[in-house]
This record gives sequence, structure tokens and C-alpha cells, in this order.
Amino acid sequence: MKIFTERSSIEQVEEGNRLAPKFDENGLIPCVTTDYESGEVLMHGYMNQEAFLKTIELGEAVYYSRSRKVLWHKGATSGLVQKVRELRIDDDQDAVWLRVEVIGGASCHVGYRSCFYRRVPVAEEASQAGDQQDGLTLEFTEKEKVFDPKQVYGDAPNPTQL
Amino acid sequence: MKIFTERSSIEQVEEGNRLAPKFDENGLIPCVTTDYESGEVLMHGYMNQEAFLKTIELGEAVYYSRSRKVLWHKGATSGLVQKVRELRIDDDQDAVWLRVEVIGGASCHVGYRSCFYRRVPVAEEASQAGDQQDGLTLEFTEKEKVFDPKQVYGDAPNPTQL
Repeated sequence: MKIFTERSSIEQVEEGNRLAPKFDENGLIPCVTTDYESGEVLMHGYMNQEAFLKTIELGEAVYYSRSRKVLWHKGATSGLVQKVRELRIDDDQDAVWLRVEVIGGASCHVGYRSCFYRRVPVAEEASQAGDQQDGLTLEFTEKEKVFDPKQVYGDAPNPTQL
Repeated sequence: MKIFTERSSIEQVEEGNRLAPKFDENGLIPCVTTDYESGEVLMHGYMNQEAFLKTIELGEAVYYSRSRKVLWHKGATSGLVQKVRELRIDDDQDAVWLRVEVIGGASCHVGYRSCFYRRVPVAEEASQAGDQQDGLTLEFTEKEKVFDPKQVYGDAPNPTQL
């Protein structure tokens, strides 16, 4: 079964009804994942060709982990599987949007519901915020973690890279 | 006024309250933009350091255009300015989420409200969808364009790259 089509023209890519994704120089396409009910952005990840195909096949989110350099079936370790309710592709087909239902209610390896648990002040707020000598002060939007990462991931290495 | 802080430890980046974004090897950070009211993902773009600072300063979305290689104050040509109602950063601070109000109601250069106007079938649906010899068939989620790109952008080159 053929899933991807070759990219032949801008018109075909933007106005056509064939899936013709563009993977970047590292073979990856970025993926935005939102909660199907609330619309909240849960995470921003990447897929390689195999992860994209697996996601379509399984109907569950499969990413490519850039830090671990492996296919990453979300929830395989934590149990926090993301069931794909809708998958969308953007105009030039170089970004993916997954609308998911999260088994367990959390998507962030730090323990929060969403990876985007901090707010950056903008405009007037930014000029008033925090200690101006030490950089802008972030505000936490989630007060408590949904789970304890140590209990869920044990001694697995933290994927965050400096 | 200092906006960004150096990245000194994983704990500081993930659990701290200082803005310490990571720009990739091309000097870019990906940005997801959603509609403040509906939660719909409108677009996926990139910011360089200058675009990020401008967005914070102005409270309006400023991106970096990879195809045109310039700072891109969204709406400067089209009038479709994105007012930032909330800006968030993710756990490892290598992705940005903008929640915006769009003057004019559309964000996509093709003329649609969202850039993500096509749905990719998954799981059982995928195995039934379209002509299997020719790749997966996409379904349009928006039936009509909000504006005519030719009227708005004139002869400006299309930013989509094959």
C-alpha cells in the first residue's frame, strides 16, 4: 500500500488531495500534538518517515526521539499512550498536527499535563516582569504535576539536552 | 534589558522560572500558533533570536521566513496580524506556543483560516482511503478560502518549497 506521493509541484502540494510530506535535511518532520477535547498544545515533537507511517497505521502517536535516536511509541514506557483522533497536514506539507486523546491524562516527561506549562510575559507585561538583570521571569500555568517522573521513568536518562 | 538566560542545567531549564530558549543548529526555534478562542492550530513556523525578541516586545507574532531568509512580521503584507494573547515555552525550552487573535480571521498564505486544512486518514480509515496505488487521499476540512491569495499577495513569490 502506497502512503506517500512524490512532491511534483507547489499546486499539487498545497491544493491537492495526496499526502506528499516534506522531511527536512535530517529526515524529520515537526509534529504539534494537541488534546482533542481541550485544544491545549501538549507537545512539539518530530517524526521520521517510519514514525509517520507507524502513526498512520496504528492510530497512536509514534515519534522519533532526537536525543535517543530511536523510534518512540509514546506511552511504551510510561503507559501514557496518545490515541490519534485526527491527523492533519499543513499547506506545504512540512508539518503535522495530531489531535489526540491521552490515556492517563499527561504528556510531559517532567510530569505535567502539557509540556507547555510556563508562560512568557509579552509587551507591557514583559517590561514589568521580574528581575531585569537576570532575564525574563516565567509563570507556571500548571501548579501540580500529574505524575512523579521518577516513579514512571525510573532511572531512564532525561531526554532534555542543554 | 536582559530577556534570555544561559542554559546551565537540565533542572534549571525544565523546572526553573527563567527564559532560556534553545535555538537549533540553524539558529531557529519552532513555533506553534493557535487561535486563542477556538484552540485551532493555525500554523507552524520558526523564529530566530531576533524574531523571538520582537514578538515579546511587540506582542505580535514575528517569525523568521526560511524560504525568504528574512524577519517576517506576520500581517505586514496581508494585514492579517496575529496579536499574541499568550506565549508559552515547553519543558526543554526548544519550542514556542503562541496563542493569538487574528485580525482578519485567516493565517494561511493559501487563503484558508488555518494552514492545517487537510486531514490524513489513520488506522482503519487509512486502509480504506482512496486509490491505494497513488498514495493516501486527504480530506479538506475547510470548504472555502477566506481570502484570495492573488488579491492579497499579488505577484509576491509563493513561500512553499518543493
